[in-house]
Amino acid sequence: MILLGYSCAVTDSSPLYLAVADDLAQLIGAGALKAHERVPSVRQLARQRRVSITTAVASLRELEQRGLIEARPKSGYFVARRRPQLAPATPVELPKRARLAGTQAVLKKMAEASLDPGLARLGQALPDPALFPERALRASLIRAVRRDPKLLGEYPVRMGGSPALRAQIARHYARIGVALTVEDLVITNGCTEALTLAMRVVARPGDTIAVESPTYFGVLRAAEDHGVKVIEIPSHPRDGLSVDAVRDLLAGRAGRDVRAVVLMPSFNNPNGSCMPLPARRELVRLARQADIVLVEDDIYGDLHFEGSRPLPCKAFDTDGRVLLCSSFTKWLAPGSRTGFITPGRFRDTLRSAKQMLSGATPLAQQQMLADFMASGRCERHLRTLRRQLHQQLAQLAQCVQDAFPAGTRLTHPLGGFVLWVELPEGIDTQALYDEAVRQRADYVPGPLFSAAGHYRNCLRLNAGYPVTEATRAAIRRLGRLLAAQLPAVR
Amino acid sequence: MILLGYSCAVTDSSPLYLAVADDLAQLIGAGALKAHERVPSVRQLARQRRVSITTAVASLRELEQRGLIEARPKSGYFVARRRPQLAPATPVELPKRARLAGTQAVLKKMAEASLDPGLARLGQALPDPALFPERALRASLIRAVRRDPKLLGEYPVRMGGSPALRAQIARHYARIGVALTVEDLVITNGCTEALTLAMRVVARPGDTIAVESPTYFGVLRAAEDHGVKVIEIPSHPRDGLSVDAVRDLLAGRAGRDVRAVVLMPSFNNPNGSCMPLPARRELVRLARQADIVLVEDDIYGDLHFEGSRPLPCKAFDTDGRVLLCSSFTKWLAPGSRTGFITPGRFRDTLRSAKQMLSGATPLAQQQMLADFMASGRCERHLRTLRRQLHQQLAQLAQCVQDAFPAGTRLTHPLGGFVLWVELPEGIDTQALYDEAVRQRADYVPGPLFSAAGHYRNCLRLNAGYPVTEATRAAIRRLGRLLAAQLPAVR
Repeated sequence: MILLGYSCAVTDSSPLYLAVADDLAQLIGAGALKAHERVPSVRQLARQRRVSITTAVASLRELEQRGLIEARPKSGYFVARRRPQLAPATPVELPKRARLAGTQAVLKKMAEASLDPGLARLGQALPDPALFPERALRASLIRAVRRDPKLLGEYPVRMGGSPALRAQIARHYARIGVALTVEDLVITNGCTEALTLAMRVVARPGDTIAVESPTYFGVLRAAEDHGVKVIEIPSHPRDGLSVDAVRDLLAGRAGRDVRAVVLMPSFNNPNGSCMPLPARRELVRLARQADIVLVEDDIYGDLHFEGSRPLPCKAFDTDGRVLLCSSFTKWLAPGSRTGFITPGRFRDTLRSAKQMLSGATPLAQQQMLADFMASGRCERHLRTLRRQLHQQLAQLAQCVQDAFPAGTRLTHPLGGFVLWVELPEGIDTQALYDEAVRQRADYVPGPLFSAAGHYRNCLRLNAGYPVTEATRAAIRRLGRLLAAQLPAVR
Repeated sequence: MILLGYSCAVTDSSPLYLAVADDLAQLIGAGALKAHERVPSVRQLARQRRVSITTAVASLRELEQRGLIEARPKSGYFVARRRPQLAPATPVELPKRARLAGTQAVLKKMAEASLDPGLARLGQALPDPALFPERALRASLIRAVRRDPKLLGEYPVRMGGSPALRAQIARHYARIGVALTVEDLVITNGCTEALTLAMRVVARPGDTIAVESPTYFGVLRAAEDHGVKVIEIPSHPRDGLSVDAVRDLLAGRAGRDVRAVVLMPSFNNPNGSCMPLPARRELVRLARQADIVLVEDDIYGDLHFEGSRPLPCKAFDTDGRVLLCSSFTKWLAPGSRTGFITPGRFRDTLRSAKQMLSGATPLAQQQMLADFMASGRCERHLRTLRRQLHQQLAQLAQCVQDAFPAGTRLTHPLGGFVLWVELPEGIDTQALYDEAVRQRADYVPGPLFSAAGHYRNCLRLNAGYPVTEATRAAIRRLGRLLAAQLPAVR
């Protein structure tokens, strides 16, 4: 069992360590340091480059975060295997209806299956409702409707949404260093609508966008629906989107048609990756240079297990070109279906698109969230939630390790609550899906996360629910189902 | 001052009266009976055609409803003036962005203006929050969240929405004779999203739809957004959509590309018209014959002032081709932003489109509405609301009659709460809009209700608020503003 990724330390010290790291990266890139070769130790590096031990450590960590070197216990750092090129940098034209049909069929089955109370709940990325502060939310909702007698009878004329909630969201982001005002935010019907709106304002039908690969299927569907071509950019299971690949893409012929990069830098769905801070900064710089837009899905950003909350790309945005999309669905009140977006330079067109698509968003649950957030209980709730999700993810990973066929690789995310599993070549997770659901051991098949149909041998598991004996049994059933395919493919 | 329309009796007796009416209509159409000529009296007609007095009355009423004859007090029926052809039956290709810009600019100003507490509130079609049962709705909401502890923490997995609310909506329609099941309904984010979804499933970009003229601007924006061409079909200010024009259209060359007719048969926004029952039935028959779809916006259907609630076209639908769209925004809880649609034959594709655009709709307000509806207080609330809106509309019409320039014509709707005003030729309501808002006497300019830019000399007024001294003063300011344009144009 190999862990696909494991670290997401987001650090930022002096630029010196970056220079040292860049030099070493060049040596690795040029082949002067080959795969599995030992790299200089911290002490050697400090001496060679006349830098402090701290800087040498930071440089090596940076290279580790870039996926260029790997630490081996008690042996130091070694050059990592070349990361596989997951997709060529050519646009994938999503054939209208044809592909949607496949994804839609699976999503429809997922939705139908989710009504079965006997299901293992390993498919949709949804957390156990018991993890949320129901009682406090209810109290907040009741307070909100009692406070404002017009809340239910008055049409919410502000297309941007509740100023009180927007102020709380701005405060929430201010705490981690992202400066937002009430006017910078638009409340939406979940993150889904935020992504739908982002897609419509940043690209016209026929335009091209770049996405991470693997990427959340909702992004691919929104692109397809809007008639937008997609280029898949490799995403490392630990460090996320390859900024080098973005740079290459933008420098080449195919890059000229790219209008935006859509990414989930913090705990990507499905592969759990987390982009290092310098990569985020560099990506924003590249976007500015090439005059393209970043659509940053930050929905799992608050669900980090270690260290501090990853700083969104939005933090480096100086000219309204990063459209941060998020929601309360994953961390506070899934039932509220309340999301938001920072429309940046597209403020007017986005509000207009929102008005056209669905009109204003109802205020009662917005005021409920604002009331809850104002009570100052968010951090405590988040601490408990993160601990619980971390534990569930670890337990689920252990189950998978115990029950899945040899040769299975899985991620080790440091946030969020999905697990990305790579099975031995030849296993077809989409073909097995119906039987798995029949056996009440659900998952999401890998190909849903790629416009080009990659990842047939991958699947995503939801760790939103506590791992019970029933979960273990479901994972064992799934393991047997997967293993049964192996003789046939070898 | 001329009333543009006045009757909306929705009757249905034997087919004999239709045969008699059709014969008379032919005489009128062929010019045998000319405009302003007297038509046979009830007694003469009964004798000539050997039918009962009742049938003769029904025939004349039918012709009146078709707008072919007019009753004059104490003088009998006369052939009506020919209704103007409002638009040619050629598709209007909505230029992407160009036209939207004009409409969007006005809508943006409307949204901004609506935040001004000093505004007369004659623009957006919104009723006074005081007209809704706030206290009872609040109690229903609190009961709903207390009853189901998972309501806020659980993601609503049913894409169709709350089964309890759908059952109540089905009951509501069953009472007037429309048979719907829970499975026939999908809850949406307001009627706006219902229309957006309908547009996407019934037509592909490049297809053509037919709409009433004048028509709700939201329909035109949704068409434009989806890249769909629009043909405007004349709508009589009393009888609504001309079924004859639809028949002509579908028989001709332009009709071959038409995929759907979008209409608001009950108290059309903006002209308040109400299609007679036989016309509704005939329209559904035509749709079946031509294999096209009807998108029926029924949002004002429950707000009739006289007689019984008009039966929607959906009542005549036998094969899932009428997509009824509606909402609780106009009659029960504007703040809930809860709408619905009957997707008919597009059930799967519509749910899938909904999932893609905005995901599931939050349940708390759905359960609130279900609780309120189950309490059996809908009818009492509606009776009060209808009376109040009727009174407000009459008072507003009186104000307009007193204050607007000579030659102004206005509708006399028998339901809903908007007033459509036709001013003397030459007055440009779009050009005057900014100044009117500055004077806090808002309205909606006529051209917003036409894809082809008709109705420059028309405007829509909202009668959702009680007519106060401030309203009267605003209408007087507006009247002066309009009159001031007259010398310049004559």
